[in-house]
Amino acid sequence: MIQLVNPPKNTWAELSKRPTLPTENLDANVRAILTDVQKRGDAAVLEYTEKFDQAKLTTLAVSQAEIDASEFEIDIELRTAIEVAKNAIYKFHESQREVPEMVETTPGVRCWRESRPIQRVGIYIPGGTAPLFSTVLMLGIPAQLAGCSEVVLCTPPNAEGKIHPAIRYAAKRIGIKQIFAVGGVQAIAALTFGTESIPAVLKIFGPGNQYVTAAKQLALQYGVAIDMPAGPSEVLVIADKHANPEFIAADLLSQAEHGADSQVVLLSDSAKIIEQAINQVKKQLELVPRASLAAAALANSKAIRFENLVDCFAFSNAFAPEHLILALENAAEYRSLVQNAGSVFLGKYSCESAGDYASGTNHTLPTNGYARQYSGVSLDSFIKKITFQEIDVQGIQNLGPSIEILAAAEGLQAHKNAVTLRLQQIKKLNS
Amino acid sequence: MIQLVNPPKNTWAELSKRPTLPTENLDANVRAILTDVQKRGDAAVLEYTEKFDQAKLTTLAVSQAEIDASEFEIDIELRTAIEVAKNAIYKFHESQREVPEMVETTPGVRCWRESRPIQRVGIYIPGGTAPLFSTVLMLGIPAQLAGCSEVVLCTPPNAEGKIHPAIRYAAKRIGIKQIFAVGGVQAIAALTFGTESIPAVLKIFGPGNQYVTAAKQLALQYGVAIDMPAGPSEVLVIADKHANPEFIAADLLSQAEHGADSQVVLLSDSAKIIEQAINQVKKQLELVPRASLAAAALANSKAIRFENLVDCFAFSNAFAPEHLILALENAAEYRSLVQNAGSVFLGKYSCESAGDYASGTNHTLPTNGYARQYSGVSLDSFIKKITFQEIDVQGIQNLGPSIEILAAAEGLQAHKNAVTLRLQQIKKLNS
Repeated sequence: MIQLVNPPKNTWAELSKRPTLPTENLDANVRAILTDVQKRGDAAVLEYTEKFDQAKLTTLAVSQAEIDASEFEIDIELRTAIEVAKNAIYKFHESQREVPEMVETTPGVRCWRESRPIQRVGIYIPGGTAPLFSTVLMLGIPAQLAGCSEVVLCTPPNAEGKIHPAIRYAAKRIGIKQIFAVGGVQAIAALTFGTESIPAVLKIFGPGNQYVTAAKQLALQYGVAIDMPAGPSEVLVIADKHANPEFIAADLLSQAEHGADSQVVLLSDSAKIIEQAINQVKKQLELVPRASLAAAALANSKAIRFENLVDCFAFSNAFAPEHLILALENAAEYRSLVQNAGSVFLGKYSCESAGDYASGTNHTLPTNGYARQYSGVSLDSFIKKITFQEIDVQGIQNLGPSIEILAAAEGLQAHKNAVTLRLQQIKKLNS
Repeated sequence: MIQLVNPPKNTWAELSKRPTLPTENLDANVRAILTDVQKRGDAAVLEYTEKFDQAKLTTLAVSQAEIDASEFEIDIELRTAIEVAKNAIYKFHESQREVPEMVETTPGVRCWRESRPIQRVGIYIPGGTAPLFSTVLMLGIPAQLAGCSEVVLCTPPNAEGKIHPAIRYAAKRIGIKQIFAVGGVQAIAALTFGTESIPAVLKIFGPGNQYVTAAKQLALQYGVAIDMPAGPSEVLVIADKHANPEFIAADLLSQAEHGADSQVVLLSDSAKIIEQAINQVKKQLELVPRASLAAAALANSKAIRFENLVDCFAFSNAFAPEHLILALENAAEYRSLVQNAGSVFLGKYSCESAGDYASGTNHTLPTNGYARQYSGVSLDSFIKKITFQEIDVQGIQNLGPSIEILAAAEGLQAHKNAVTLRLQQIKKLNS
């Protein structure tokens, strides 16, 4: 880890920069696949699946028999653990449901909002080194709670054309009926344009590598919405002298093992804690199977000592981490100092792994500094809030004269007329 | 208006299509201005302002003296009407504030969300044919309520380099301190990258012509967030036989006067109401000063008769209008049939003008069918919701074993270790 002491404020922006990858050709390559799938549908998707995933498929849909079989392909321990996670995630996301509150803004003028599901949503689950069934829960549960009528899951097959049973099982448990064995840019393209077998959706969710991320960004131009811009995962830990260096090291490593581009930052007002945590990292690294990935991430990561915790929080807000662990005594008391973060973990037993899997909070969170202006995924991400207004005779009489003046001042005479006609009719009825 | 009767479902997508403008060169031209402002800052902004707005400025910031003078440049009637609108908008948006609700998802595991303002936001107010001070209120009030620490307003100057006093006054009344006389693509560029005088922001709000809209879409690629994709304004009216044709016509015209590309749709189960409304449109058109704009919009607009109101709602949901007026007896009873719309107006006195100015709902709404997946602007648009979790000894003991199993099944050993270490320490302390 790179160690720094009290870096001046004018260096913070530079220190907060995430590594960027060149994207010129990437965009062109991604766009070529998008337009090819738009033109040729399933045929193109099947070709790209053979090319990129080495899977020779004849059909993209995962059959109901394969979905049902998942229950017997994973052991009872894992099924039970999935149940524990599912229940916690349900409970927290259910609490995000908004009860419509009617407000009388002026006597006779009632306004409120009502939620409606986004009808067709797509969920992308990456393949690669780990079967991310946890992300199936994190995206599928709020989609179900919102009442989305179609939830379409795409995930790349292995070379035998199969989807990991834990992914099939998690999807089945939360009522996802449409699973397609397709990954990468071709999956995002299929969800954007629709193909003979894969329905087009209105919004695409889920993490992915730089190709998938670029495809989601481009999909925006074709009218699809996306959950948020994405980048490599991140954790920032703020620790005081009371923190447990063993725990800090374990949390830093659990982020670092995600990949060489993972962002790991430790801030403290205690030189001793930083030293102890770094020693622990070295010690625990030997126990991690994905040690080479983690070591690469750690080589670029930073441990910074500041004079005091207030400076630690100021730096953290400038960095705007995806995950923020407050390894502080009485951690909850500091939470008003948190301005920019995706998800915050308070105290020594609140490890990031808990939020990644089973505390109930969502693990689809803004990275790359986007926590300054984006929220993580929640029930809100799967709904629209529609405003309603109901204005009665008294209401238009109260508000009408002001609207006439405002519309006239903006030069919009027909806007004014719409009110004037109503006021005249009321006058006539009353006379 | 184009009249149709019971168009079959397979034609609805085509009937719902909004006119599209060719965008190839537009994107290139817009990007050129963006990168020029990124490189040369204020100098470039001043040049474009002279080129596009014919205003030769030496400074972009509107002075405090000019802001303060606005009060004496508009009459008391308008000031009072602005006050009425402001109070209603405050009241409705204040009601959108969320009280954090803590949920114990598992004994010992507490999760909740807290809102934080997006710290720096930009508000774009178009120039053109009407001084849209109402949009200043619609965007500035939720920004103030959210607690955004910097609110930067950009709006194009007239050829004398001045901003309309009603815009300056509305901004002053809601506490906006930074106003810049810059419009068009150069304004979006300045808000995206920052210049010597204009601060860069994290999120850009506000309507605009196709150039501004394209600039906002491109700004996304530079890490700025935007309120929503935008297009020409729209209204769809569903009327039954009890509706007042005069009111319907006035509402259709108040949308049509926005511009030749405005979208106006009338749906009814009554042939008579359609006929009467169209006759009223012809009659009222003569009274509208912006009649040529309105007539052009009406030429492309549609009046469709369906067998019943259920079909009207089904078509409306396929169209997903920005504004939906329910000119129906007992309109509120139909609201569960509304799936996709920006803002809904219930009953004969709830005209769109009311929502445009003063009912309290926001008038920055999704157009172009985006009401299927986007909400209009609200207090939520100016905040992030950060998730928090606090796990105590009991919590990690309850959840830990499940997290260990889930992390191991995803092949993430370090994620598992972060829990195992904590469980071991608790065991040691208890023994």
